[in-house]
Amino acid sequence: MSQRKLRVGMVGGGGPANFFGGPHRRAILIDNSAELTAGALRSKPEESIESARDLFFSRGYPDWQTLVKTEAALPESERIDYLTIVTPNDAHFGPAAAAASAGIAVLCEKPMTTTLDEARRLHATVAAHKTPFIVAYTYTGFPMVMLARELIRDSAIGEVRKVEAWYPQGWLATKLESDGQKQASWRVDPTKAGASGCGGDIGTHAYEFVRFVAGRHATRIRGRLKAFVPGRALDDDFTVLAELDNGGIATIAASQITIGAQNDNGFRISGTTGTLEWSITDHTVLKHYAGGQPLRLYRQGAEYDYFPGSIKPYLRLPSGHPEGFHEALGNLHRTLEWTIRGQRGEKVPTPYDHPGIIDGVAGMAFVEGAVASSNQDGAWIEMPKIG
Amino acid sequence: MSQRKLRVGMVGGGGPANFFGGPHRRAILIDNSAELTAGALRSKPEESIESARDLFFSRGYPDWQTLVKTEAALPESERIDYLTIVTPNDAHFGPAAAAASAGIAVLCEKPMTTTLDEARRLHATVAAHKTPFIVAYTYTGFPMVMLARELIRDSAIGEVRKVEAWYPQGWLATKLESDGQKQASWRVDPTKAGASGCGGDIGTHAYEFVRFVAGRHATRIRGRLKAFVPGRALDDDFTVLAELDNGGIATIAASQITIGAQNDNGFRISGTTGTLEWSITDHTVLKHYAGGQPLRLYRQGAEYDYFPGSIKPYLRLPSGHPEGFHEALGNLHRTLEWTIRGQRGEKVPTPYDHPGIIDGVAGMAFVEGAVASSNQDGAWIEMPKIG
Amino acid sequence: MSQRKLRVGMVGGGGPANFFGGPHRRAILIDNSAELTAGALRSKPEESIESARDLFFSRGYPDWQTLVKTEAALPESERIDYLTIVTPNDAHFGPAAAAASAGIAVLCEKPMTTTLDEARRLHATVAAHKTPFIVAYTYTGFPMVMLARELIRDSAIGEVRKVEAWYPQGWLATKLESDGQKQASWRVDPTKAGASGCGGDIGTHAYEFVRFVAGRHATRIRGRLKAFVPGRALDDDFTVLAELDNGGIATIAASQITIGAQNDNGFRISGTTGTLEWSITDHTVLKHYAGGQPLRLYRQGAEYDYFPGSIKPYLRLPSGHPEGFHEALGNLHRTLEWTIRGQRGEKVPTPYDHPGIIDGVAGMAFVEGAVASSNQDGAWIEMPKIG
Amino acid sequence: MSQRKLRVGMVGGGGPANFFGGPHRRAILIDNSAELTAGALRSKPEESIESARDLFFSRGYPDWQTLVKTEAALPESERIDYLTIVTPNDAHFGPAAAAASAGIAVLCEKPMTTTLDEARRLHATVAAHKTPFIVAYTYTGFPMVMLARELIRDSAIGEVRKVEAWYPQGWLATKLESDGQKQASWRVDPTKAGASGCGGDIGTHAYEFVRFVAGRHATRIRGRLKAFVPGRALDDDFTVLAELDNGGIATIAASQITIGAQNDNGFRISGTTGTLEWSITDHTVLKHYAGGQPLRLYRQGAEYDYFPGSIKPYLRLPSGHPEGFHEALGNLHRTLEWTIRGQRGEKVPTPYDHPGIIDGVAGMAFVEGAVASSNQDGAWIEMPKIG
Repeated sequence: MSQRKLRVGMVGGGGPANFFGGPHRRAILIDNSAELTAGALRSKPEESIESARDLFFSRGYPDWQTLVKTEAALPESERIDYLTIVTPNDAHFGPAAAAASAGIAVLCEKPMTTTLDEARRLHATVAAHKTPFIVAYTYTGFPMVMLARELIRDSAIGEVRKVEAWYPQGWLATKLESDGQKQASWRVDPTKAGASGCGGDIGTHAYEFVRFVAGRHATRIRGRLKAFVPGRALDDDFTVLAELDNGGIATIAASQITIGAQNDNGFRISGTTGTLEWSITDHTVLKHYAGGQPLRLYRQGAEYDYFPGSIKPYLRLPSGHPEGFHEALGNLHRTLEWTIRGQRGEKVPTPYDHPGIIDGVAGMAFVEGAVASSNQDGAWIEMPKIG
Repeated sequence: MSQRKLRVGMVGGGGPANFFGGPHRRAILIDNSAELTAGALRSKPEESIESARDLFFSRGYPDWQTLVKTEAALPESERIDYLTIVTPNDAHFGPAAAAASAGIAVLCEKPMTTTLDEARRLHATVAAHKTPFIVAYTYTGFPMVMLARELIRDSAIGEVRKVEAWYPQGWLATKLESDGQKQASWRVDPTKAGASGCGGDIGTHAYEFVRFVAGRHATRIRGRLKAFVPGRALDDDFTVLAELDNGGIATIAASQITIGAQNDNGFRISGTTGTLEWSITDHTVLKHYAGGQPLRLYRQGAEYDYFPGSIKPYLRLPSGHPEGFHEALGNLHRTLEWTIRGQRGEKVPTPYDHPGIIDGVAGMAFVEGAVASSNQDGAWIEMPKIG
Repeated sequence: MSQRKLRVGMVGGGGPANFFGGPHRRAILIDNSAELTAGALRSKPEESIESARDLFFSRGYPDWQTLVKTEAALPESERIDYLTIVTPNDAHFGPAAAAASAGIAVLCEKPMTTTLDEARRLHATVAAHKTPFIVAYTYTGFPMVMLARELIRDSAIGEVRKVEAWYPQGWLATKLESDGQKQASWRVDPTKAGASGCGGDIGTHAYEFVRFVAGRHATRIRGRLKAFVPGRALDDDFTVLAELDNGGIATIAASQITIGAQNDNGFRISGTTGTLEWSITDHTVLKHYAGGQPLRLYRQGAEYDYFPGSIKPYLRLPSGHPEGFHEALGNLHRTLEWTIRGQRGEKVPTPYDHPGIIDGVAGMAFVEGAVASSNQDGAWIEMPKIG
Repeated sequence: MSQRKLRVGMVGGGGPANFFGGPHRRAILIDNSAELTAGALRSKPEESIESARDLFFSRGYPDWQTLVKTEAALPESERIDYLTIVTPNDAHFGPAAAAASAGIAVLCEKPMTTTLDEARRLHATVAAHKTPFIVAYTYTGFPMVMLARELIRDSAIGEVRKVEAWYPQGWLATKLESDGQKQASWRVDPTKAGASGCGGDIGTHAYEFVRFVAGRHATRIRGRLKAFVPGRALDDDFTVLAELDNGGIATIAASQITIGAQNDNGFRISGTTGTLEWSITDHTVLKHYAGGQPLRLYRQGAEYDYFPGSIKPYLRLPSGHPEGFHEALGNLHRTLEWTIRGQRGEKVPTPYDHPGIIDGVAGMAFVEGAVASSNQDGAWIEMPKIG
């Protein structure tokens, strides 16, 4: 490598109670190929600048508007290479659209926006400017999830019949927001989170398994959203049944009131000739069933030849040395990095086909459809065409 | 014990391809407290008698009518103590109603009948004659499932919010019935199985977890039944969403096309203060989550004092010596045995509250409701009052 | 089947605190092919007879001497077909030798005797009379253990290099014998258990994995026996290193003071091209590793074609319907039954090659070698030639 | 944080086939608190300098001698804060002793040296200069391992009786070194690896569980080292039995020929009142058994209050977001960082008591003892006093 490190900007993620700023910084730094350059990390201008200094960003900004404007005006040799957006949902659209308009690549947290309309407008902007864009469906960065996708594309389970995707958590089983817990507060506030709490926050991850791994999409859905905790403004439990474009079905079960569940997303995808199953609770393993044969457990490890060339560059360690959440998130940054470097003619591995703007739009369509269905006592909602 | 062995009759279960006759005979014999007395084990009279002789029944009969009539006429000192019914679904009602009418106790396979109407009529008969009656929801005989029920009754998880019950299998992922596989053939034939294939066969087991373990019942349900295998007459995939009597919800997911899934029923029940989870794939363990504390794994073993007095008599072996399916099924026979012996004044442990006629009726109401909903593209169906 | 049931005798196993009598009776009865005929179940004559009656044996005897003598004198059409011995270790030799001398087949609990000398003498008797003889190394009756053996014979892992066998328990971590717990009392009493407590009781099981599964035997061993609980007369912890006949090595680790361990025996056998691993804690699964490939999990189920014809007849249930300890023990009885029936010309499946008298002798040589080594601070002990 | 980033030096770890350089760089960078400053990363001078530049080190050096000499001469405001040593074993002593003599803190890979004598001399140097020193027993950086240590110190299992430590791998089951595989080559070369291959490389990790987690040390040991692969110069299988200072025992089982095992180190520690068990194969969980109670599973997550204040600062993510190997290694760097910062009066959490120079010496004593014992056919070897 004689390449320079990429220069990364970040909006949000600097507050003391912030959860995702830290993981994204680790994901950016871990591979020694990028640096923290420009930050507008908090909502109050002076705190934003102070936070950027404390976190060793080269340049601190009072707000994202200034960041984007200033960086865009810098010569290419100094400007940030991409912008990471880790604000609450309602503050994704602004910086994302501004950056894309300025030709700055974006890695944006999910759900991509708070409404489908916003998502479509962002899509239009990104498309118009042809800006590289990644949506942080972090679980698609786990290598065994990527392997599941490749096996399905390789016909390992035949035609997909059924996708079961799940994402139970237990942390909102009590009214945490009443204690001023900051993570909880904005996630159950419709003005910040959007029309769905549980569905937007984690249901979208589960639905992305349908799209990314199974390679299918919903044509109509019905949903049941429920707030189990009295007085909560948004759903903390989210159940959706979907019909898929190929005649299959999917169930998406997300919840925040499953006490004891940590962050236990996963999927099982059954096809005409086999089944694949993955869970983050045992995330270095992918189960592959085919009728009548011993169950096959693919296990993670850089040395295993069953990883295709498209995934190999995303493996850092030999088997038995567990990678985890930071590396998975790092894989999404890596895809964006290699996309950017590749466009510049640097020699890099082929970036993997990780979720982009279309997946962000699809996620919002899914959430809005589920909300609409639930509001009509579970009526079927046709899903709009995306992309 | 100076008691005599109970005398057990059996209808069905004698054919070479029969699956459940063998397990029931093992369940009856394993505890050295009952014997095989009267059998009408096959549909052809001569084969029925031959089969009874080959399987060491004391008395063979050409058909169930003759069996019930003859046994009922015997003096109490010779008559069978109860009748086990292991025929295909459409042949449950006849012998069950006849036996109950004759005052003979019954252990009947599930689904209890092929229609709700039949089930209600059987209920009336059983109630009129006050005959002990057990429905073979076998998984309620697993001690850790019984423990889950007791913990919930003991407020270990607070008020039930959500019941997730599942039962995936993979054996019908191809059109097995075309090969004349006998187990498959009748299970996908509406004239023998009833209005639902997957739902009747295994969805009912999953729904019983809602009733037996969680102590709740559905007030309205919506269902999606699907035959994935082309040309199949009945559903091989069965998805139901239910609203529960206490405001909670339940999801019941059963399937016969999940390749690689063996017989993997289980449940997760989340309440206001904790969660319980059990799966037959690790059936000697019950997981109990309470917020912020280490996960607790209850493990099976006759020596553990956390089993209440109501369950202790159902444990045969010390920990680490795995019991299994036969013992669980044996526990249902044991409950019927102790009920019968107790009514006679013999000294026996208190029989556990295993599923009876009401649960059989509820199962049929559930199946019929799911079928009706599915036929109306998933409309909500109000569940009738049972019992 | 137009065969009669086999008639089974039993010595020991009738007392209220007895552990193994119950499991053996269940193992005998479960398959509807044998009955309890003759019992000398307790040490006091009158209790022995009473116990036989209460447990529904056809004939009760005051002691094993009378049982063997009387049964041997009966015509073949009434005589027991084999004798099951479930007494404490010091009371194995007597009835076993007497039965064998009388031409009555024997299924004997392990360790087979209390000394190697006794074992050799019993061997001589059995050999002289050519009596069928099975030693109850129960874990060899688990189908996945049998499959491991077949795979190794089939070169699935190449040449065996290393056998790791383990058997931790925790039930003797405190001085249970001081409370008069009957199971504990005789097991830590040298006059009843023999020269080793932990080694004899469970170390022998672990060593049998070396012989039965790996097909190897120890040529020299060194052992470390230790009584962790103060005042205990026999070892409660047992560690042995063995050199094998083919140049490989084995480690045998048994313990009764591993709190929380239930009965967790298992093995891992590594060869030049692969590894097999099994544990009773997940006993329906056998893990097969080969370099660089996905891990293969063989799972139990009567329908799987990867079970060879030699094992198929030992599988009772389709996959996902867990069999367990009783069925495994039942498989040893089944092997003896089919041996006996086969010798009489009845049509039965080929009996599997389960452990017999030679394995019983080898177990005693192993225990005595380990004790001798430990007494010499771990000196190497050459193992005698057996058989 | 208004602290500057620490400046880190590195010796070794720059070659294309190097395994550990990458993980250490990630561990250094991941937390945004340190930077790569000075590198002497390869053995050839020009490659060393080039590698440092490619890997974004601020200063590249031709060799470690120049690095240490030059850095030591820099003003404190520019000098590296500590040196990371990731060379093969035979090249640990030189840079470690030089750095320590120059007052530069060290984080050194294990085994610390190639001989006990070297280790003792390094100890003397470090002690004389009072230089902070960490030995990279990486598994002690896993939070659940740290929790196990704290629970034992807190009497959660009473007095330690038995430590079982294991570390099977399978990667050297064939003669990989013949193919010029670089990782394999030096590890089986006595001039580079020291007197033991498997024992030095991974047996030392397993033994550190005895010291670090159980808080005990061996007083005498016996070992069996074996090279299963024909023609291999060092052991690929390593079995040790140890007597502990408190009368307990330990077994250490390491192997590189267990095909399919990845890197599966772990331990089970049994005491008078309970047992703790951990394995890297499920590394976010710690099992705690106490007699008769449900098994308790402690699970990793920054939000859990059962982590004591000494461990809390080492947790980065909420539960269900798996950390892994890089974070564990990062925790050792973090301990060194906080030690250094603390000595300067910066406000940092209390550094955890991770393994230091004494543990490095103890590891070498353990390896040499095992080799000596094995060379004498397993004779007991008294362990020297350390520290």
